[in-house]
Amino acid sequence: MAITTSNKCNRFLYKGVFNMLLAGILHRPESEDTAILADHCVTIRLKTALDDVAKIEMIYADMYLWQEGTPMQTTEMHRGLATQSNQYWTLAVTIPTNRLIYGFRITDKSGQTIGYGDDGFFDDQATNWAVAGHYFHLPYLHVSDAELPPEWVKNTVWYQIFPERFANGDVTNDPANVTAWGQGPVRRESFYGGDLKGVIDHLDDLADLGINGLYLCPIFTSPSNHKYDTIDHFEIDPHFGTKADFQALVDGAHERGIKVMLDAVFNHFGEQSPQWQDVIKNGQQSRFADWFHIHGWPVGRDPQTHQLNYETFATGAAMPKVNTQNPAVQDYLISVTKYWVEQFGIDAWRFDVADEVDHGFWRKLCGALRAVKPDIYLLGEAWHSSQALVNNGQFNAVMNYPLTQPIPALFNHELSLKEYVGKTNLQLTQYRLPNQQAMFNAIDTHDTPRLLTTLNGDVTKLQAALTLLMLLPGSPCLYYGTEVGVAGGADPDNRRCMNWQPNADELALKAFVKQLVGFRRAHASALASDELSWKIEGQCLTLNRQSATQLISGRFNLGTTAVAASATPAVLSVGVHEHQLLAGGFEVSIN
Amino acid sequence: MAITTSNKCNRFLYKGVFNMLLAGILHRPESEDTAILADHCVTIRLKTALDDVAKIEMIYADMYLWQEGTPMQTTEMHRGLATQSNQYWTLAVTIPTNRLIYGFRITDKSGQTIGYGDDGFFDDQATNWAVAGHYFHLPYLHVSDAELPPEWVKNTVWYQIFPERFANGDVTNDPANVTAWGQGPVRRESFYGGDLKGVIDHLDDLADLGINGLYLCPIFTSPSNHKYDTIDHFEIDPHFGTKADFQALVDGAHERGIKVMLDAVFNHFGEQSPQWQDVIKNGQQSRFADWFHIHGWPVGRDPQTHQLNYETFATGAAMPKVNTQNPAVQDYLISVTKYWVEQFGIDAWRFDVADEVDHGFWRKLCGALRAVKPDIYLLGEAWHSSQALVNNGQFNAVMNYPLTQPIPALFNHELSLKEYVGKTNLQLTQYRLPNQQAMFNAIDTHDTPRLLTTLNGDVTKLQAALTLLMLLPGSPCLYYGTEVGVAGGADPDNRRCMNWQPNADELALKAFVKQLVGFRRAHASALASDELSWKIEGQCLTLNRQSATQLISGRFNLGTTAVAASATPAVLSVGVHEHQLLAGGFEVSIN
Repeated sequence: MAITTSNKCNRFLYKGVFNMLLAGILHRPESEDTAILADHCVTIRLKTALDDVAKIEMIYADMYLWQEGTPMQTTEMHRGLATQSNQYWTLAVTIPTNRLIYGFRITDKSGQTIGYGDDGFFDDQATNWAVAGHYFHLPYLHVSDAELPPEWVKNTVWYQIFPERFANGDVTNDPANVTAWGQGPVRRESFYGGDLKGVIDHLDDLADLGINGLYLCPIFTSPSNHKYDTIDHFEIDPHFGTKADFQALVDGAHERGIKVMLDAVFNHFGEQSPQWQDVIKNGQQSRFADWFHIHGWPVGRDPQTHQLNYETFATGAAMPKVNTQNPAVQDYLISVTKYWVEQFGIDAWRFDVADEVDHGFWRKLCGALRAVKPDIYLLGEAWHSSQALVNNGQFNAVMNYPLTQPIPALFNHELSLKEYVGKTNLQLTQYRLPNQQAMFNAIDTHDTPRLLTTLNGDVTKLQAALTLLMLLPGSPCLYYGTEVGVAGGADPDNRRCMNWQPNADELALKAFVKQLVGFRRAHASALASDELSWKIEGQCLTLNRQSATQLISGRFNLGTTAVAASATPAVLSVGVHEHQLLAGGFEVSIN
Repeated sequence: MAITTSNKCNRFLYKGVFNMLLAGILHRPESEDTAILADHCVTIRLKTALDDVAKIEMIYADMYLWQEGTPMQTTEMHRGLATQSNQYWTLAVTIPTNRLIYGFRITDKSGQTIGYGDDGFFDDQATNWAVAGHYFHLPYLHVSDAELPPEWVKNTVWYQIFPERFANGDVTNDPANVTAWGQGPVRRESFYGGDLKGVIDHLDDLADLGINGLYLCPIFTSPSNHKYDTIDHFEIDPHFGTKADFQALVDGAHERGIKVMLDAVFNHFGEQSPQWQDVIKNGQQSRFADWFHIHGWPVGRDPQTHQLNYETFATGAAMPKVNTQNPAVQDYLISVTKYWVEQFGIDAWRFDVADEVDHGFWRKLCGALRAVKPDIYLLGEAWHSSQALVNNGQFNAVMNYPLTQPIPALFNHELSLKEYVGKTNLQLTQYRLPNQQAMFNAIDTHDTPRLLTTLNGDVTKLQAALTLLMLLPGSPCLYYGTEVGVAGGADPDNRRCMNWQPNADELALKAFVKQLVGFRRAHASALASDELSWKIEGQCLTLNRQSATQLISGRFNLGTTAVAASATPAVLSVGVHEHQLLAGGFEVSIN
């Protein structure tokens, strides 16, 4: 890219005289730009171009009271997060009547002002501020419409278990020909014998590590080791154990203050499911013929084109896509989710490939589940920004990969500090704060290479990455074995057996992770809610979480030379030596 | 405002070298920036700064096929509508698998390019385009999630009736002390005796005028003339007639191809409703105590502060706000709406003050109504841009005042032509095209001054304003009497009696309106769907609706001197004389 030297300043001019980037100014009511935090409390947000305007005031009132003579209030907004291209401004207000109309007075660096509201930009004149049509409206703040996630989620540190690889607690239920525990390489078809009893056996270990949420990959009957190709959603896979085992697992977890989340695959069924087998057997006469997306009979591949005549997950033939618009399918799947909540008392559901399923179905399912368990946590799998899946009667949160994936990229120096901050702030502005606090923040899962491997085996980087994760808002998750140095590349290598014989280094890592989880849980409320800001000094990145009374700072030295350590003793650190924060080191302090 | 001369060009520079207003670039998946129009068909939209970039290409694929080797497609986007500050770019694509990931290559005027996707901006390099995380995702296009409005709505021209003032068909049901028909001034408490029989008597007149949708303001029992303070939602007000009358009205309308929409007030009840009366009588013991928002007992005003201890519509005491979060209230109100649909066959509901009621309730109500009548039209009252009320299981459309209010402002020269176009385009970009086509486009209603009065009695301006309205996408509505020159200022003057004795001028206006409605209905499909663009030539504003085969143009001379008329003979015109389009005149032509 060549450097362009241009004398022409093409910024858009309002009526030819205004020196501000109007094109970058945006506010949208009842979007993520407005967040009801509690009854009468709302945070308003406005976006401008980066480094463009000097001041923004919000001008607001209850419309009816204003029309009867109560004057507008004017309050200056605060500078919030900045992305690559935009600056956010925020203001939290309390609205006694719950009714709000509001506009923005924007002041540029030369002191000129302009009005901005529901019908665009207007001259900053009293006659314009007297026109109701110029204002944005939040006609009535219903806290029910905020769909606030359950309180417990933001205080939770999750631990994800791939049950076939965590622990073999009962060798009598092992599949035939299991591989010896830990013996590699892991293949797509490998079985090692992990089961529910293995999880139960280690609940004390998990409690000791400090985690208080357990996310189990699918446990229903399925021919595979991953069990994302469900046969029967109402049955535990016999190689994993029995319903009594699962009840013991849930009860044992609850006794230790640990929530339990199950994983459901409703985008597609396994080809061995009785429903799909019935379709294969009975064709168009099958009572399940309209449970799938079938475009020709008999189901299969066209002999000429080799194209499938039915829809599937991805491009293989093995996972036929489910017709979630069919009311019979909806009833069946909703009954599945209610069954495990009502019979076993699970606390949360994660829905696989949620983004490829229709929103209408999710609204029905989520509504039905909240009717039986109001504080259930409902999580959708998605890999991209997914505002359309969050709230509006749907999920509390999604898998937050867009927030977590830049973390290893930062420590691997694939992103500059500035790029990292811009990308992270972009993601932090995608959802309202209550949802941000409930986002499922896993850096690595059964679907990604393991963090330690992504970081090329660098344990210090692993510790730094986990520390940064824990300092961000969201509900963080550790993938099983991370605490004892389990490595692994892409699927299936990321599903290696749990390391139950850690060496000294691995035990030291485990001790660090335990300390980190303890720190996170002790400060969960602050790390969920306190104001977030970044500071870049050379190759040192500082993440600040500031409340009225406390500042939690995480400082990461991404450079190649040591810098002076913080004056405040660190509550958590690696690579601090004689008042120096060494290259690659980090420190967390509380002031 | 003083003119600012600045040498500093503060546009944001990508990595210090890029000459483009990144701050103005925005796309958001599954928002109004993506519109599913039919199975496999989606329109993608991107916003940039106005007059900034030279070219935009969309780069897209099915993610799974791409990961298996199918290359990305690259297609140039089209320049769409422009607002005061931004340019929209659009592209309609057909996606055989219904799965889409996509990014944008943006070329500035100097030929430099940049990539833009889900995680922000990136260098336009092949290595970046190989990263799935850079792309926006529409994981699966479910046409059910488009919540396409009923087809008939975009072909409908509505006629709004305020029943107490349209026609008195049955003097035996008149309230006591009715004022003589048409005798002014209209007072807030006036009764004139209009009723359902009056509407039935004039169904032929309405059919002759050409309208095919009838929107009736509330008809349920209420003490007022406007009946927005309902007593019993299951009964016709006795001064309006009987259920047999209403059935005859609906049947008579349907026989003439006219749809019928009723008006429901669910934000609040009238104080004379049995529910509120029970609360007054029984206080906290009332079984309706939790049907309202009551913050103290007994209900009333605080003797000291004079504040009400219960919530109401606006600031008066007479219309207590309903607790629509209460499941008993929800069941009751849903049963009301189903009753009039199932028993009388009405085609649509308009919901008063919809914007102050919670979204959770609307999702339940709209879902229940669509279950009994899939092609029902559900319309919410709002006065501002209201994306949160449209789709997501809620309304097909809202009252589209933000689009219609600038029309009289244009003809009154309160807006320049450019300002009018900017404001109108802003509103036209607020909703997806299918919803835009179903928007309720009324310039005047029982809640606004009458159009003729807003236009200071200028009949030519009235004709021009209605013509412009009819050329825009949306479901246009005429307020009763507009066609025969009924005037009136703000409420209650806007509710004058229908003029049943029009003079020659008024009959001429009626003939014009009939011609205009006929034109609109004959070209309803084109005017709903064809590409919309504007042309400003001096003080002449042209609205073009262009398809592959046809161009409908409306040209309005807002200047003070005549200009040459269009070469094509006008299908509809006022003020065309000897090949001249006179000052204030307009012409509609089809090429």
